[in-house]
Amino acid sequence: MARPIILGVVGDSAAGKTTLTRGLVRVLGDHNVTHVCTDDYHRYDRRQRAERQITPLHPDCNYMDIMAQHLGHMRAGEAFLKPVYQHTDGTFGPLVRIEPTEYAVVEGLLGYYSESLRQNYDVRVYLAPPEELRRKWKVQRDCSRRGYTTDQVLAELDKREPDSEAFIRPQKDSADMVVSFLPSSDDQEHLDVEMILRPSLRHPDLTPLEQAGENSGIRFSRDGDDIHLFVSGQLDPQVAHAMEESIWENLHFASHLRTERLGEFTIGTDLHRSESLALVQLLLLYHLFTAKASVALGGAGTRSA
Amino acid sequence: MARPIILGVVGDSAAGKTTLTRGLVRVLGDHNVTHVCTDDYHRYDRRQRAERQITPLHPDCNYMDIMAQHLGHMRAGEAFLKPVYQHTDGTFGPLVRIEPTEYAVVEGLLGYYSESLRQNYDVRVYLAPPEELRRKWKVQRDCSRRGYTTDQVLAELDKREPDSEAFIRPQKDSADMVVSFLPSSDDQEHLDVEMILRPSLRHPDLTPLEQAGENSGIRFSRDGDDIHLFVSGQLDPQVAHAMEESIWENLHFASHLRTERLGEFTIGTDLHRSESLALVQLLLLYHLFTAKASVALGGAGTRSA
Repeated sequence: MARPIILGVVGDSAAGKTTLTRGLVRVLGDHNVTHVCTDDYHRYDRRQRAERQITPLHPDCNYMDIMAQHLGHMRAGEAFLKPVYQHTDGTFGPLVRIEPTEYAVVEGLLGYYSESLRQNYDVRVYLAPPEELRRKWKVQRDCSRRGYTTDQVLAELDKREPDSEAFIRPQKDSADMVVSFLPSSDDQEHLDVEMILRPSLRHPDLTPLEQAGENSGIRFSRDGDDIHLFVSGQLDPQVAHAMEESIWENLHFASHLRTERLGEFTIGTDLHRSESLALVQLLLLYHLFTAKASVALGGAGTRSA
Repeated sequence: MARPIILGVVGDSAAGKTTLTRGLVRVLGDHNVTHVCTDDYHRYDRRQRAERQITPLHPDCNYMDIMAQHLGHMRAGEAFLKPVYQHTDGTFGPLVRIEPTEYAVVEGLLGYYSESLRQNYDVRVYLAPPEELRRKWKVQRDCSRRGYTTDQVLAELDKREPDSEAFIRPQKDSADMVVSFLPSSDDQEHLDVEMILRPSLRHPDLTPLEQAGENSGIRFSRDGDDIHLFVSGQLDPQVAHAMEESIWENLHFASHLRTERLGEFTIGTDLHRSESLALVQLLLLYHLFTAKASVALGGAGTRSA
């Protein structure tokens, strides 16, 4: 088998990593995707962290070297034994054997912290919602699914802020795509999205968007070699469809994988759909598929940096 | 290993099949390409054909069913034993074992004759030089390399003409690309090329050429869903380079395979280069690489018909 194509999804706690990747895994097929969370490489369990007054965001609280070693195994298509951190009670469970498959999604807090980590990814995404939105998401999730009170979550966020600033947010600079979902209204199906697309990957031709007027809901600009793209959550579905169409056009060799299921997410048990989420996921698929094509043709992938 | 990607190159005797494929094989790498000539499937040797008054162009003179069976093995990535017809003395040599590799080039006279043959190819090219040019090429080749006199070759061409008309030329209709090199001068490095690009394959975006003026050396037109493309052999090298650039742009996932060696051919032992040959070969590479990408992604290839 050719080596797996590896997507990194990094961002602070509750930045939306799982929502983004769950939809991609669904599209690529569960059995084709190895899903790894780098937070499993914590050095200390919850009790030990409390004793040591260290947050899980600090590199010293994680086996950073083993994380890189295991990502190297993944990239080489070799199996490895992964530790398991249990968010439910903050302890470690039994190791699991990971067998690389066609694709891997590696998500977590510190995935781009060092060059020996970064070099393993074919595509690097960083999720950077506004802090206010992230705090809201973290409260929602940790209270409903991890058994905390709102005050506990907010206190924890404050305690973590220095490490977020020192270790998490600087990783944004190592991403090929920085993605910020923005609240345009209270309606989670219609979040705006703002993206920075860096030249370390060859993005599909988006120049038609450059001509889109101010009222189109799309803003396209350049900052040196970076592309800044804003897409309104209230975008006309026809315009959204045309954008998606032009990206699939560049992916015609993968047309058998075309799907209408991008952008789906759940709130509680209800299935929702977000156009901006669909667009981000489609851009990621574009890069995963072209990287896979490159590797199949004997190349090293599609990274230019 | 994924199944091989199969290019068909069909055309009458001395239509330029070997010149076209030799350059592609050089670029793809000898060890990556299985080269099969369907003329090896002749039912009768030269003496038997003379006795029976049958030309090698007639389907009855070939094991058409075995040809299709072996192409099916090739497509499935299975080895097979191929007969060998020896042009030097018109007899059969010992069988050879063929092991499919990443790519296959299947050239010959009758490769698109039946649907059970046609269905095996990822890309189907038909070479259709003007008859006058083909006769000249056949005389040059058969006299210099196969030991005939000019009169013998011309007599043979006349004898074969009814079968060429009945069995060879109609195969043009089954090709994805019909390629005609045309003599603009006596200079073989600067042949014009005329192509019909059919919608059974998704060709790279050539619409920029639609706007090229009459004096550019490029003529682009549409006939229903077909594209007709004429490129002058005297094309400005800068324009030729821009055309090639735009096709490579669509192949960025194969950029590690980019090469300057397209268009090379030999006259005697001298190496020459033709821009029009390079362009045709690049279009073929485009289709081979996108088909390979599709198969690597679990697809069936890039044919739409």
